[in-house]
Amino acid sequence: VVSAGRIIKLVLEYDGGAYAGWQRQKGIITIQEVIETALKTMLDEPITIHGSGRTDAGVHATGQVAHFVTGTTYEADVFQNALNALLPPDIVVKEASEAAAGFHARYSVQSKRYHYLIWNRFFRPALMRDRAWHVRVPLDLEAMADALKSIEGTHDFSAFQSSGSCAKSPIRTILQQSLSRDVNGMVCVTLTADGFLRHMVRNIVGTLVQVGRHSKTPSDFSDVLIGKNRSRAGPKAPPQGLYLVEVEYGQQSD
Amino acid sequence: VVSAGRIIKLVLEYDGGAYAGWQRQKGIITIQEVIETALKTMLDEPITIHGSGRTDAGVHATGQVAHFVTGTTYEADVFQNALNALLPPDIVVKEASEAAAGFHARYSVQSKRYHYLIWNRFFRPALMRDRAWHVRVPLDLEAMADALKSIEGTHDFSAFQSSGSCAKSPIRTILQQSLSRDVNGMVCVTLTADGFLRHMVRNIVGTLVQVGRHSKTPSDFSDVLIGKNRSRAGPKAPPQGLYLVEVEYGQQSD
Repeated sequence: VVSAGRIIKLVLEYDGGAYAGWQRQKGIITIQEVIETALKTMLDEPITIHGSGRTDAGVHATGQVAHFVTGTTYEADVFQNALNALLPPDIVVKEASEAAAGFHARYSVQSKRYHYLIWNRFFRPALMRDRAWHVRVPLDLEAMADALKSIEGTHDFSAFQSSGSCAKSPIRTILQQSLSRDVNGMVCVTLTADGFLRHMVRNIVGTLVQVGRHSKTPSDFSDVLIGKNRSRAGPKAPPQGLYLVEVEYGQQSD
Repeated sequence: VVSAGRIIKLVLEYDGGAYAGWQRQKGIITIQEVIETALKTMLDEPITIHGSGRTDAGVHATGQVAHFVTGTTYEADVFQNALNALLPPDIVVKEASEAAAGFHARYSVQSKRYHYLIWNRFFRPALMRDRAWHVRVPLDLEAMADALKSIEGTHDFSAFQSSGSCAKSPIRTILQQSLSRDVNGMVCVTLTADGFLRHMVRNIVGTLVQVGRHSKTPSDFSDVLIGKNRSRAGPKAPPQGLYLVEVEYGQQSD
């Protein structure tokens, strides 16, 4: 596809708390719409931005990527400065750059990485109240790490896909997984994959927490994956613990 | 002083963003007042709580300590659970315990530790927008570390004290200082002292940032301290980067 204009690539951080997710929708405020409105103010022409994918209502990003096409000749850093002046305090452009022809924030994705934060202490979080899932029962991280091993590699992730997905195939490849707990009791689940199905990280984490609290074994977790049956998985983890932290792009298909 | 009742000690975390600081004041909402109101609801008797010290409007805590005296016979963890159910989401009781006779959250303090967070990147913070000071110019951490060394030990801190202080003496002892930068560009200044004067951490950090951006040398910083002249120090750093992280107590004076 040859576009009439330059392709500007944005790396974005946002607090998803106030938004009905990434994707533009009538009658509710979304991140895509807020950025498009700022671009319209700046450029005085309607612009459509394309994200690497949707994030759900309440989900955060420290490394969402989006692009748009423009006929204007501003340097890329002018877009960063102007947008950061126009955008609300909970959305920021971390980087703006001109991408090579053929780049598409969604179709050129090579891999994406998510973090999921779990506040694993008896008392609820105050400072992190909209930034993590509070799980009061002490989690068995060893059991959770065992379970996570079973999703490494290429699998049919139907068991961890919410309905309403429009993915053509439920096959995805988990390139990397890790689990850690910091001195404050914050547990971080990291997942990198070539792509994710609808609610896949939150469904995995919800089931993983069942393992951590011993209501499922690591082997049950693996059986859920193999069984490809959503109804055997745990409840979906809430959105406020989820962060899209990085989107990587490979060779550009131009 | 012998009190008629048990002394309950609370360790508190709070997001100071919505409050006019710790200390009860007529006509504005403070953290002390919100906790006292919750205790009144729980115990059906008016309670006064004593904090380890005030925190200013917008300043956070992950380890503020307070105590109150009660004639009730609840176990300490009942206070934690009941208060956490009654308090708003931005204030939480991390620990509740019964203290020995003679304990006083303010008068028994041995040392206090503060963190000050500086978001040292070109673009403003989105997720941390109310949790750190944004300093856009890259800071010279080596120069700042040099400067910080000069405040170690016992000094007259008049140069870093804001007017309106009711401290009897401007002499304080810095027991520990450190400076670090994480992978996200967040700089953390840590100061532990036997006590702090009014706005002392924020005045130190404000001057320290002048060193970090080369508008003062480490030796100028040391001269400000020695000169005891507030007007030679830098502007006060804003409140949202400051966290009271720990209060330590020594042998109890009973």
